[in-house]
Amino acid sequence: MRQRYKPWANDYIKNNSHLIIPNASDYISKWRTLFNNQNPIHLEIGTGKGQFLVGMAKQYPNINFIGIELEKSVIVVAAQKMQEANLKNVLLLNENAMDVSSFFSANEISGIYLNFSDPWPKNRHEKRRLTYHTFLEQYKVILKPGSEVVLKTDNQGLFEYSLVSFSQFGMTLEEVNLNLHEINDSQNIMTEYEEKFAAKRQAIYRCRAAFFDSGAQD
Amino acid sequence: MRQRYKPWANDYIKNNSHLIIPNASDYISKWRTLFNNQNPIHLEIGTGKGQFLVGMAKQYPNINFIGIELEKSVIVVAAQKMQEANLKNVLLLNENAMDVSSFFSANEISGIYLNFSDPWPKNRHEKRRLTYHTFLEQYKVILKPGSEVVLKTDNQGLFEYSLVSFSQFGMTLEEVNLNLHEINDSQNIMTEYEEKFAAKRQAIYRCRAAFFDSGAQD
Ligand SMILES: C[S@@+](CC[C@H](N)C(=O)[O-])C[C@H]1O[C@@H](n2cnc3c(N)ncnc32)[C@H](O)[C@@H]1O
Ligand SMILES: C[S@@+](CC[C@H](N)C(=O)[O-])C[C@H]1O[C@@H](n2cnc3c(N)ncnc32)[C@H](O)[C@@H]1O
Repeated sequence: MRQRYKPWANDYIKNNSHLIIPNASDYISKWRTLFNNQNPIHLEIGTGKGQFLVGMAKQYPNINFIGIELEKSVIVVAAQKMQEANLKNVLLLNENAMDVSSFFSANEISGIYLNFSDPWPKNRHEKRRLTYHTFLEQYKVILKPGSEVVLKTDNQGLFEYSLVSFSQFGMTLEEVNLNLHEINDSQNIMTEYEEKFAAKRQAIYRCRAAFFDSGAQD
Repeated sequence: MRQRYKPWANDYIKNNSHLIIPNASDYISKWRTLFNNQNPIHLEIGTGKGQFLVGMAKQYPNINFIGIELEKSVIVVAAQKMQEANLKNVLLLNENAMDVSSFFSANEISGIYLNFSDPWPKNRHEKRRLTYHTFLEQYKVILKPGSEVVLKTDNQGLFEYSLVSFSQFGMTLEEVNLNLHEINDSQNIMTEYEEKFAAKRQAIYRCRAAFFDSGAQD
């Protein structure tokens, strides 16, 4: 999500460390103390401007949400949305998802959302896709067994790739939807990208894939 | 595939028992003797008028093909195509795929094709879908470990359902393609239904899913 350079972003992030938590790895195993409750924690990776994260936090007050976003100029917009909504169950991390397993301990997370992730269509960039097996390995560690990765995208190539990648990693598909907006899922919270593509009547794909303990399936 | 009633179909089938093999279960474990070679055997289920089966048999002379088709009025058209092409590596069965594991012994088959299978969209007809788990159980028995089920369809619902069904049965996706005709796969042999949908520029979906011995994956 390329965004105009925001000279104030660095200062904003520094001054809002209650919204955008610095040094995420300091909180490994301790996120629940930060939320002040024992509710399950869900993660969104590549949160962008935060419409989905804030919408989910409103819709599910008994779930804690953490959004990870690399780009400073984008994450500040998400933080402003959070602030306006005045929610207690959502936090942001200005981090790279490559390091996600250093922020959370085994089984600390109960769900992961990947929304309109960068498709990286070239073969030589496969490793950067958020559904590449090195990412899945980390997700598997931090997710409780039985938890899901939920992927939404408009990108045919990324979707095809991700279904195969999930499957080859031993994950189980719980849902595949090739035209999400056709089914009128009233629980569906749209992201910024999703709204743009929906306006153009492009098909939105969604799938849900779960990790189980080896041998638990079949 | 509804077809005009062909009064001559019954006689044709009786008189062409070298093309449309009667009493398929008599040949369990013995199909290679019928083909007179040790080549792998691939199965198409719901062959229809046989364009795919005959095309594949021409393209892969070192594979034996067997087509299963329920409808007499349709299978005779496939048999006529076979006869014209004068191929030694293809046979037909006028049978119901529900009984497929009584025609073939364990590991006797090396590949299964499901082309534009009837979608049975109503929930109460789920059991009739050729990717329902009772069918997968039979496919798993007759297929050599590592072999694939290849599904092509224009039907969104059947495709979504089948991906989930394969996955939940422990099969591994090897390929998912959401717009087959976009990629110009020169090996792709079109079926009669496929040609019709392609002419209307409808998307054709394809996936390949493999069975592995339990524990061989991961
Ligand atoms: C195409 S945008 C989608 C944004 C938002 N999810 C939406 O649907 O509107 C992808 C976002 O993921 C972020 N991103 C990409 N790779 C990342 C990574 N490895 N770690 C954290 N964020 C990442 C990008 O900075 C960008 O904001
Ligand atoms: C929609 S047609 C597709 C025909 C062909 N595969 C094509 O793509 O042109 C489905 C075919 O599957 C056959 N069929 C459906 N269920 C079957 C079953 N249980 N056993 C054998 N054939 C079946 C039908 O008779 C019909 O000819």
